Parts: sequence; C-alpha cells; structure tokens
Amino acid sequence: MPKPLIALDWGTTRARAFLISETGAVLERRVADRGIQSVPPGGYPEAFAELAGDFRHATPDAAIVLAGMVGSRNGWIEARYVPCPASPAEIAAAAIKVDLDAGTRATILPGLSCDDGAFDVMRGEETLIVGLGVSDGIACLPGTHSKWAEIRQGRITRFASFMTGEIYGLLRNDSILARLAEAPSEADAVEGAARGRAATARPGGLLNTAFAARTEVLAGRMAGGAVGPYLSALLVGQEIAGAEALFGRGQEIHLVADGALAESYGTGLRARNHPVRIISPEAAFVAGVRRLAGELSA
Amino acid sequence: MPKPLIALDWGTTRARAFLISETGAVLERRVADRGIQSVPPGGYPEAFAELAGDFRHATPDAAIVLAGMVGSRNGWIEARYVPCPASPAEIAAAAIKVDLDAGTRATILPGLSCDDGAFDVMRGEETLIVGLGVSDGIACLPGTHSKWAEIRQGRITRFASFMTGEIYGLLRNDSILARLAEAPSEADAVEGAARGRAATARPGGLLNTAFAARTEVLAGRMAGGAVGPYLSALLVGQEIAGAEALFGRGQEIHLVADGALAESYGTGLRARNHPVRIISPEAAFVAGVRRLAGELSA
Repeated sequence: MPKPLIALDWGTTRARAFLISETGAVLERRVADRGIQSVPPGGYPEAFAELAGDFRHATPDAAIVLAGMVGSRNGWIEARYVPCPASPAEIAAAAIKVDLDAGTRATILPGLSCDDGAFDVMRGEETLIVGLGVSDGIACLPGTHSKWAEIRQGRITRFASFMTGEIYGLLRNDSILARLAEAPSEADAVEGAARGRAATARPGGLLNTAFAARTEVLAGRMAGGAVGPYLSALLVGQEIAGAEALFGRGQEIHLVADGALAESYGTGLRARNHPVRIISPEAAFVAGVRRLAGELSA
Repeated sequence: MPKPLIALDWGTTRARAFLISETGAVLERRVADRGIQSVPPGGYPEAFAELAGDFRHATPDAAIVLAGMVGSRNGWIEARYVPCPASPAEIAAAAIKVDLDAGTRATILPGLSCDDGAFDVMRGEETLIVGLGVSDGIACLPGTHSKWAEIRQGRITRFASFMTGEIYGLLRNDSILARLAEAPSEADAVEGAARGRAATARPGGLLNTAFAARTEVLAGRMAGGAVGPYLSALLVGQEIAGAEALFGRGQEIHLVADGALAESYGTGLRARNHPVRIISPEAAFVAGVRRLAGELSA
C-alpha cells in the first residue's frame, strides 16, 4: 500500500527535496545549497527540518528516504557500498535507518561499488538508474563526473565514471585556451560543436585535439566564441568513445539529463549512431526513490 | 668559415642565451625570466644587451641568432611561419634581420606551420629538431605543450602538439584529485607510475582513467603520494598513444629532454616498445642554431 514520500537527493554541495504523493506526483520540490559539506556533525536532523520540515508537517505519515552523499563517510552515517551486480531489492536491503527525532525514522540509501578492472563507486546515481525502469540497457548520467551504467535482467551489473564536466571547466576557464575563449554567438555554438564532434574522430587523442582550439583561433580559422562549444563537444565525444569501448557501440542509451546537457549528449550520442531515450534527472529520481521505498516496505 | 655565435632561445616567459665557439663549444650560458612578455615594445635591443651584452663585448665578430617567440606577432618582429615540409635551408631563408644598434644586426628565425588535417604551429622547437641531425625519424619534445615531429629526407614534414604538461598541472593542482594528492615517497613514485602506464591501456580513455585515481585512493588501494606519478604516467602514455596514431608505432624516438621528463618519457616510450635516443634540449638547440646559422651565411 503506497504512502506519500518525502525524498531527498542530498549531495555534496546541494540538496533537492521532494514531496511525492501516493501516486507518484511531485507535490512540492525544493533545491538548496545545503549539501553535506555545509552540515556540521550532528546537524542532520536540523538540516532536514530546514529542507523538508514543512513537507513532514503537511504529510505526517510520509515515509522519508534520503539518497546520495548523505550516506557517505562524510555524511550523516555511512551506508556501505553495495557491490555490483545489484538489484533494487539488494540496494534497499543495505539501507540504514536513522532517527530524525523521537518516533520519526528516515532511511538512508547506500551507493554502489564496481570492481570491473578499475574500482569505481557512485552515490545517488543508483537511485536515478533504478528509476529508469529498464531491465536491460545502458544508462548515461552526464555531469561533473559523468556515470555510465549497464543494466542486465534488472540489476546494475557495472558502471564507470568520466571526469568530463570537471575537465571541461578546467580547460575552458583555467587553461591557456581560456584566454582565447569568448561568449559564443549562436553561430559559434553550432560551428564549435560540429568541429568538436569531428575532432573526436581524429587520431591524436584528447591532449592533441584540445590544443587545436588554440591554433585554429590564432590562425583565424575559428572564432573565439567557438572555443567553449568545441571543447564541450570534443569532451562529450571522448566520453562517449570511452564508454563505447567499455559498454559497446550503437546501443540505445537511456540519457538522464535535461537542458544543455540533454542537448549536447543527445547530439553527441546520435552522431555516433546511438538511439537515445531522454529522461529528466527529476523524473528518474522520483521513480527510483519510489521503487526503492517500495522494496524497503516490502 | 664558422664564426662564434651568440644564440638566444627567447620564449614567452624565459630567455636562454648561449655564447658558442667556432667549434660548437658552449663558452657561456645564461637563463633569465626575460621572456617576450616582459619586454615592452621597442625594448628588445635593451633586453638583448641585458641578456647577452657581455657576450657581444667578448666576441664582437660573433653572429647573433634569435629563435623562439621573439619572432612571433607579440615579439620583436613577426617572422612568418614556414609551412611544412621545411628543410633547414628553407627555415634559414625565411629568417628576418633586425638592427640591434647601428652596425650590428641579428637574425630572427621563423617558426613552422603544419596543415596535416589540423593546423598547428611551433616556434623555437624547429631549431631543436634541426639540431638532432636526423635525416629520417620521429622527434618528441616534451613540455607544457609537447611537440612531436616527423623528419623525412632531412625536412620536417609534419608535427603535432599535445597539451600534456598543462593538463597534468590542472589535474594535479586544481582538480578534485588535488585534494587527495600528497608528496610522493620513492615507493609511491614507482607504484603510481606503473599504475598510470597500465591505465593507459584500459579502454575507458583519459576521462575515465584519470578519475580512477580518486576512487583508488578513497578505497585505500593507492597511496595519496601515488596520485601525481599516476597522472603523469597516464598522461605521458596518452600522449605517446596519440602520437603513435599520428606517426606510427614502434619507431625509434629522438627524445629531446633531460631530468624528470627524460625519465618519464623514456620509460613511457620503452614501455610501448619504442627504442629511445635522448638528447638534451641545450645540445639540440646549440646544434640546431649552428646548423641554421651555417645556412644563413651559406
């Protein structure tokens, strides 16, 4: 029997809180710069009250589920990584109960670990991946540290992280290329992205093709406004190429993104012949946390 | 009839000045933070006097040759890029004469451009490559922006730049990996380098394998001191892999480096089955500038 749900995606810098009805409708949502790095030891019940106290007041019978870095060693309490392959039931079984106050419990979901050649971990993304409702497929979650995951027979079998968003920021804002980069016009954005995608296929690799932005601008062959879009498309292309080497080519990709990332990854994936299904991070989180809450109460 | 030579490798941030005897012996050398970015318009004769005025005084009949960014648009005077393929004679023929003072001329060497799919340029490195004295071969000049060049029948036929040193600095000092990195012990240096070289062969690519440093340290599988050596070896390996895709595998590499770069690139190249011949940047510069000075007076 589903209950309403108060669910937090509680990360390092930010927290997103949702009040979700029995039928899965998002009744309220809130985002705050109240990530775990801003919460002092022992301060989680108070931080939760700031973030979602009014949701609790409105729905005192709601289940409370917390996902993300809140379950890390630096969060409220450590919920140990569940090793892959992991099913929704196995993820839910490793959740940890905490007391918000006398008589009110919350559940902290664990992250996942994967030891597929290289060791890797995630916290929070597992909930979005579960929310895809996919039995067999590949998921891509773009971001500062993008995640790709393989799902087989309803279990997350393996995954890998890519430092794409962070390296983009370093190249765009802190490298020698930053001095040449300008705010892109619409034409620059289109041209830079097309050239970045094309550069992904060149043999010299990222260290060579990233530097080419400089030479092309200095030679008057590319506008300064195209540098950012070039780097973005180049890095997205490199991420996709790396993920193809790990997970295979040409498969349908479940892309968990919205806005500019949905656009740039969608274009990059289609350019490399992947059918793409886009789902927003909010929709994936809400579906995933409901599924895991259902397993918790099962 | 060779004359003594005063030669400057005059870059953006630094200048190196050499007094070279008729027979090629370096009689005096000097390095100063007197790169072109520190020289005001019209200030070059004075900056030269600071750097090498005493060399001139000691050898008034010496030829004076200036290589590097001094010949760029932001330097003393622009010596246009010579397009590849370029022989030493073709490079020398594009040199530009300037007046140091009444009656004393200096020669500014040009850089090279290459339009082999991607456009690329170099200034200063062409002199070191000429100094290798190689008729057919591949040169690697590691650095902030490494250069690889192909030489065929005594001409530099094509080359490519790699942003390796700069991206290393960004990842080591400014990324999320910086927080985990510590000063390496000798054991950390060996372990990190071995793991970085191994990671080059993994299928996920640089964006994935760079991030693995974080996960491995957080999981207690790698020491914080190994992060820097891991990243260095990984990036060197990625550069070599990219250069192999452009210039071919398994060839002998003329490595223009000394100190830590000679060590890390030498190890990385041998690990990928390249015979390596190491020559110091100073030896390559002195031999190259003498060769080009000979062409100038020919």
